[in-house]
Amino acid sequence: MLFILQLPIFPHMKNPSRLSRQLAFLCEIDKVKSVRRRTLLMDGSRRENDAEHAWHLAIMALIFSELSHSRRLNLLTVLKMLLIHDIVEIDCGDTFLYDNKKRKLCKKQERKAARRIFSLLPHNQAREFMKLWIEFEARKTPEARFAAAIDRFQPVLHNYKTRGKVWRRAVVRPEQVLTKNRHIADGAPVLWDYVQKLVKDGIKRGYFKKR
Amino acid sequence: MLFILQLPIFPHMKNPSRLSRQLAFLCEIDKVKSVRRRTLLMDGSRRENDAEHAWHLAIMALIFSELSHSRRLNLLTVLKMLLIHDIVEIDCGDTFLYDNKKRKLCKKQERKAARRIFSLLPHNQAREFMKLWIEFEARKTPEARFAAAIDRFQPVLHNYKTRGKVWRRAVVRPEQVLTKNRHIADGAPVLWDYVQKLVKDGIKRGYFKKR
Repeated sequence: MLFILQLPIFPHMKNPSRLSRQLAFLCEIDKVKSVRRRTLLMDGSRRENDAEHAWHLAIMALIFSELSHSRRLNLLTVLKMLLIHDIVEIDCGDTFLYDNKKRKLCKKQERKAARRIFSLLPHNQAREFMKLWIEFEARKTPEARFAAAIDRFQPVLHNYKTRGKVWRRAVVRPEQVLTKNRHIADGAPVLWDYVQKLVKDGIKRGYFKKR
Repeated sequence: MLFILQLPIFPHMKNPSRLSRQLAFLCEIDKVKSVRRRTLLMDGSRRENDAEHAWHLAIMALIFSELSHSRRLNLLTVLKMLLIHDIVEIDCGDTFLYDNKKRKLCKKQERKAARRIFSLLPHNQAREFMKLWIEFEARKTPEARFAAAIDRFQPVLHNYKTRGKVWRRAVVRPEQVLTKNRHIADGAPVLWDYVQKLVKDGIKRGYFKKR
């Protein structure tokens, strides 16, 4: 295995040029491809990573933008949010949605990570990404609500398609899936209806562990 | 390993609803995460896959849009192209840039694959994606030229960062890197200058096999 190389791509790091800063960021985020999530690929062969997840969400957002509450959804903003929202996990790792304790602990760490990683960029771009990341986390604008709905819908679909393997392994209850993902309704009501159907059908099919 | 499941997500496939068609597409493209490219991750640990690649390109496009020739670049169009451009490789696999023979053979297959996969979507969305895919391949609009520049720049950066391991293994010559990627200049001249520097430096550092 090769080391992460310190190469002369950035020869003037004491006073880095704009391009060097952009490249430093783009090389740093390559690590997102190695942040493993709990969710399995739909063929069940392995765990998904954050980069693949973000790519899938971005295409989902393109396809489902018509399902948003808002008629004036800024799709470019949605895509930007979805593409960058998990970059912080380079420092913090992925936190399982149903692990409440760890999720609370991570909140502060994630903000610190966002600051560290986005600050690699030139100032105006760092500021834009930080603002987008905060907007996504706050879930108050139509764009953030829709993006958050997509971010929650995708793992439910994956977990259903892999016959609830992750739900059963982590002893997640159907009520938890519904409680934790309820805000899908705020961004994409049709997808929320669909999630409720999937959970109901999942119970029938034994995708949840019986207590 | 679980099988790819035929689940009742699409209960009316004979007359599929709009949502069912969208879901069929979104489940099909999960396979993009298993299409392996030649390029290694920057830490050299494994080969990159098409989904990770597309995600990286989309963020690169956000960061580098200021480097485009065109002052009126439609960034949303660029992102759409980059997110979907390799979906055809579900059917055709990734073709190594320097394998001329295989690349010619694949052209027809790729169009067929685009038709098959995009047709899973509702008609208007299938048409939009097909149009975008053709536009990207033709490299005539400013958006397609810029997207293509980004698509070529990223693997060069990866290959440089992994000390030319892929270049040496496949006995790629520096002139080939320059010839094959010359159209980066049409979309993002600054990145083309940079690629030339990387290749020059790569020669010095022994990242290419000596003849």
